[in-house]
Amino acid sequence: MIADYQALCQRRVDAALNDLLQPPSEALQRLYQAMRYSVVNGGKRVRPLLVYAACEALGGEARQADGAACAVELIHAYSLVHDDLPAMDDDDLRRGQPTTHKAFDEASAILAGDGLQSLAFAALADERCNPLAAELRLAMIACLAHAAGPAGMVGGQAIDLGAVGQRLDQPALEAMHRHKTGALIEASVRLGALASGHADDCALQALQAYAQAIGLAFQVQDDILDVESDTTTLGKTQGKDQANHKPTYPALLGLEQAKAYALELRDQALHALRPFDSRAEPLRELARYIVERRH
Amino acid sequence: MIADYQALCQRRVDAALNDLLQPPSEALQRLYQAMRYSVVNGGKRVRPLLVYAACEALGGEARQADGAACAVELIHAYSLVHDDLPAMDDDDLRRGQPTTHKAFDEASAILAGDGLQSLAFAALADERCNPLAAELRLAMIACLAHAAGPAGMVGGQAIDLGAVGQRLDQPALEAMHRHKTGALIEASVRLGALASGHADDCALQALQAYAQAIGLAFQVQDDILDVESDTTTLGKTQGKDQANHKPTYPALLGLEQAKAYALELRDQALHALRPFDSRAEPLRELARYIVERRH
Repeated sequence: MIADYQALCQRRVDAALNDLLQPPSEALQRLYQAMRYSVVNGGKRVRPLLVYAACEALGGEARQADGAACAVELIHAYSLVHDDLPAMDDDDLRRGQPTTHKAFDEASAILAGDGLQSLAFAALADERCNPLAAELRLAMIACLAHAAGPAGMVGGQAIDLGAVGQRLDQPALEAMHRHKTGALIEASVRLGALASGHADDCALQALQAYAQAIGLAFQVQDDILDVESDTTTLGKTQGKDQANHKPTYPALLGLEQAKAYALELRDQALHALRPFDSRAEPLRELARYIVERRH
Repeated sequence: MIADYQALCQRRVDAALNDLLQPPSEALQRLYQAMRYSVVNGGKRVRPLLVYAACEALGGEARQADGAACAVELIHAYSLVHDDLPAMDDDDLRRGQPTTHKAFDEASAILAGDGLQSLAFAALADERCNPLAAELRLAMIACLAHAAGPAGMVGGQAIDLGAVGQRLDQPALEAMHRHKTGALIEASVRLGALASGHADDCALQALQAYAQAIGLAFQVQDDILDVESDTTTLGKTQGKDQANHKPTYPALLGLEQAKAYALELRDQALHALRPFDSRAEPLRELARYIVERRH
């Protein structure tokens, strides 16, 4: 069932992203090509799914969440492009395809990432793309700017870079992931809730607890898969984190303990959703899927 | 007189930028250091000056324009950091100091630039930093996202990269600069006008014509200085554009013709300001300064 919902969200957000990625002139063709390559890549669109699912959990309609769904995916895509650069993680493959700086060149990848970040804010600010009240759109922009910025995702990348080769303890590792991947996952859920037009403090708090738990679960499971899967299933170079001496949960807790922790986080996420009715089912399904997935 | 006004704007925006660049936690210290290094560098703050001057030309007060002044400078600073990277212009010096990737490292420079871009949108979205009506703040964010993004500044960088070693004609060269530097200069003036709370279509059009003229004048004069100044005065490697076979106005028009063109653009800028009273004097002074400056 989550696969159907995911396919639905993917189609919705891919159509909206396609509209945003039309080159406005001949001279900008190549830049937009690099941006499009970085975004249209068969990605699972987990963050847009969270946006739609949170919006619908609060009784909103999917079309209210299109702008936010595009915005979080654009931020996610830009972060991957920059993260893959030679000066950063130096990855040649992403989902089995050449990374943007391999398919184009480094300068184009830097600029494509920069452009995708601007486009995310444009998508939220624009009334056609995000047809909500001005106050709501502003709250969404403030939320995304904070989550994507130096106190959020970018800060997490910086902490991650500084931590390579170091032995982090669990609180330090969690602080890193809370910034690096958690901030944008939390923002996705919050943006979806805001887009519904029915977000009160109580619902926002419950959804934040949910988002924190699945964000961490996602990371723990990623680390587990990096140890267990082979390169073909994963679509990226297997064992890379270990080879780079990046701190991981299996390295810190042991593989079995890491698996138990992922399940515990799933349960925390489901617990946080108790106040919600059946419209929150996609959010519940996702929490289960995250710890069961094999890639 | 423009020097006094410039010093005033510089102090204002530097104080506001300083507030925005406080690291929220110990773990983020180094990232914020790199961001601060990229921003606090004795820059002339031309774009913030334009924001303040446009706001005051329409009867607004400087404090209304602080958020916009920060935002345009943050975008400008991030673009320089990324532009200086080895994969882009590969510059070691900026205003006589090591560029960010030299003072820190490439990964930190990429992340610092990314973080500065997010911070620019945060500055406009935040009510404390930009205490204007929601509709105004939104219009400002939409304007900046467009000007900074792939259809604006980032697009200009991409066109510039594609043009190295090519012989562009004047329309192609102007299209490149209109994106690369013009878009943010136009946005600065527009953001200042919006911040005043008194921007009507007529004023916005006149200010846009002004901004287009000085934006181009700025670039023509930059090209002239790249030929004429020595490295010490300029604070960056002299003759670099020529050595890189970058298209320049002196190369295209000849040095004397390029100088005449800069003066013609100054006159166009002054002409566009005819509807405004003495409160537009800083804007007029700036137009004169741009073509008279020696660095």
